[in-house]
Amino acid sequence: MKSLLIVCDGMGDRLTNGKTPLEAAKTPNMDYLAKEGICGIMDTVGTGVRPGSDTSHLSLFGYNPFEVYTGRGPFEARGAGVELKKGDVAFRANFASLRNGMIVDRRAGRDEEGLEDLSKELQGMEFDGVKVLFKRCKGHRAVLVLRGKDLSCAVSETDPEEVGVVPNKSKPLDKDPKSVRTALVLNKFTEKAREILDKSSVNKKRIAKGKLPANLVLARGCGMEPNIQSFEERYGVKAACVSATSLIMGVCKSLGMDVIEVPEANGHVDSNIGKKADAAIKALDKYDFVFLHIKGTDEASHDGNFAAKTAMLERVDKEVIGPILNRVDLKNTTIVLTADHSTPLRLKQHSADPVPLCIFGDVRTDDVSKYSERTCAKGGLLRICGRNLMGIILDLGGKSKLFGA
Amino acid sequence: MKSLLIVCDGMGDRLTNGKTPLEAAKTPNMDYLAKEGICGIMDTVGTGVRPGSDTSHLSLFGYNPFEVYTGRGPFEARGAGVELKKGDVAFRANFASLRNGMIVDRRAGRDEEGLEDLSKELQGMEFDGVKVLFKRCKGHRAVLVLRGKDLSCAVSETDPEEVGVVPNKSKPLDKDPKSVRTALVLNKFTEKAREILDKSSVNKKRIAKGKLPANLVLARGCGMEPNIQSFEERYGVKAACVSATSLIMGVCKSLGMDVIEVPEANGHVDSNIGKKADAAIKALDKYDFVFLHIKGTDEASHDGNFAAKTAMLERVDKEVIGPILNRVDLKNTTIVLTADHSTPLRLKQHSADPVPLCIFGDVRTDDVSKYSERTCAKGGLLRICGRNLMGIILDLGGKSKLFGA
Repeated sequence: MKSLLIVCDGMGDRLTNGKTPLEAAKTPNMDYLAKEGICGIMDTVGTGVRPGSDTSHLSLFGYNPFEVYTGRGPFEARGAGVELKKGDVAFRANFASLRNGMIVDRRAGRDEEGLEDLSKELQGMEFDGVKVLFKRCKGHRAVLVLRGKDLSCAVSETDPEEVGVVPNKSKPLDKDPKSVRTALVLNKFTEKAREILDKSSVNKKRIAKGKLPANLVLARGCGMEPNIQSFEERYGVKAACVSATSLIMGVCKSLGMDVIEVPEANGHVDSNIGKKADAAIKALDKYDFVFLHIKGTDEASHDGNFAAKTAMLERVDKEVIGPILNRVDLKNTTIVLTADHSTPLRLKQHSADPVPLCIFGDVRTDDVSKYSERTCAKGGLLRICGRNLMGIILDLGGKSKLFGA
Repeated sequence: MKSLLIVCDGMGDRLTNGKTPLEAAKTPNMDYLAKEGICGIMDTVGTGVRPGSDTSHLSLFGYNPFEVYTGRGPFEARGAGVELKKGDVAFRANFASLRNGMIVDRRAGRDEEGLEDLSKELQGMEFDGVKVLFKRCKGHRAVLVLRGKDLSCAVSETDPEEVGVVPNKSKPLDKDPKSVRTALVLNKFTEKAREILDKSSVNKKRIAKGKLPANLVLARGCGMEPNIQSFEERYGVKAACVSATSLIMGVCKSLGMDVIEVPEANGHVDSNIGKKADAAIKALDKYDFVFLHIKGTDEASHDGNFAAKTAMLERVDKEVIGPILNRVDLKNTTIVLTADHSTPLRLKQHSADPVPLCIFGDVRTDDVSKYSERTCAKGGLLRICGRNLMGIILDLGGKSKLFGA
């Protein structure tokens, strides 16, 4: 038995003119899953908890985010291809522009000129025995990793998340000497990086062209690489992830999953999700558990665009679920279709509303024949917590452990 | 967005001649909420847990009573207007009557004559550096507070809750020196109070008139003021309580809510609940979160009176829910209607049965069009725990915090 978990990011919604996007969309393949499977609703992290995509995915994979989550930094770093060690402290970072001591642009004008070269100038720093790893990602983005003994993620961020102000000094958030030390190292790096960037010929060129200099590194999203069992250690199952979103790829890498990259996928509403479906179907040959993540549904939700969300759902139905139903060995595969959280269009942000859930496989079917938030709420699974989903998937896949005799 | 939480104490019930009181009552306004909102059932403290009104309200406000609750004493004391400090140990107390060393009446004949003067005679005592605060409440009732260092609520009660026996000596319930000390102080107070009361001219007058003397103070419901975050600290929301029940007012005061007193309300089935609705509606102008508590439903339940409970529910529908629907800004207010526990008429006491729940606001509506225990069980919320309700309310009010990124 194989398992395929399909997560459409932010798919859950509330009512717009009396209907959710899932209710408005034509999704015959999802409806087939609902009709032949068992449905329910799910609080991915907890009832009444408004989850991020990182905490919700940890929970969907059976890890308790209240115990293991400290911040998005390590997942961003992993997603950017940085191999982390236990105890590493990681941040999201931005190239930003400073003038007369004030932040004038938090993204250095979104101008990438010379950023690759500037990144090289920031390599190899070390303060008080703590190594600083700096890796540029797309655009103005980067990740910053502190590696050394006795670090802590209880430190404040240097990014004030506004312009017209001075950058923040990082401060320890508790009295632990580790936090004091970590804040000190981050401040030393920030200071040193500023000196280097200010002097760099790259920035002189940018300024000569009338561009903003990229003369500051701002850090936020501090987190520590969690000390957790890998997915395979925990469940005895080899797992692969198909995603185009670095945060989600990072969560999967932290759990030791193999991440399959699909060059045609971009995480947006125009992503080539058919190629992702192909990759997931193929991965089922080699892996017991395949996780397929689709981001476009969340993007349309954050834009508050009902038509775009509905269209994206119809694309998922046609280009992802359809091929999966046609090409996967349905007799020997558990297929789960759900979301990591709701992102109601009217809010344009995550909410605590439960998500719809359908499990297709060797299940007790129910009367639900349409896949949506409100129809799934009438299904045979009732209302479950995301952290318990893996147990159900493993059990249906014949891979759960007996507790007791 | 504002939030209005309406709790009808003990509203949930079992079947009497095939119907619950909510099913038998005509409640068109509650039914409107159910039709336009989302319904479910709720275990206020936990599935299969039979809650008190104090523990259930703590849970409804999002606090875990298994962690923070030690006894009703501090809530009674707060409700009686005693300002408590962290570490205070509080008891409910009664004036009682002792003859030849035996308790002959636990309520001093329910005769209030001179009790106010007797209370004055009990002021200002101190034993081993522990101050004793004594405050008379309605009738024969009082609250007793021990204030000092190193106190504990692990002590037995002096009230044996029966007559024809001697009063109990308080004993430490564990080996902690704090418990030993607390029991000692309580016993010293009880002894000293007995001496003072016995000698008092008030009691000589009572006896001369053929009345029972009020010559003993019995203590029970020991609890310690919990060391918890206030509601506002925890949720960033200013909250007000409208209740006529001292225990519930006490819980709200312990959480730092503003308590709005309605002089016309008395907590009984003949209370002027319309005035309470007025106060709650008005409070929504000033507060983000308003809690409205109606006690009469529980009173009718403890009396085992089906007709009285049904009539009270119809009064709530007409005099509370109706005006709220007419006068509250429904587009910008989440309205929650529920109970703190079930009090089945046949039992005349609290039960572990879940309570009906309806949330009206920006919700995924369901097919429920009648507000009752059994119809709500078919609603879109399914079955939730009371401790998670605040998360849902805050989320619908746009005041929940994102957990993760």
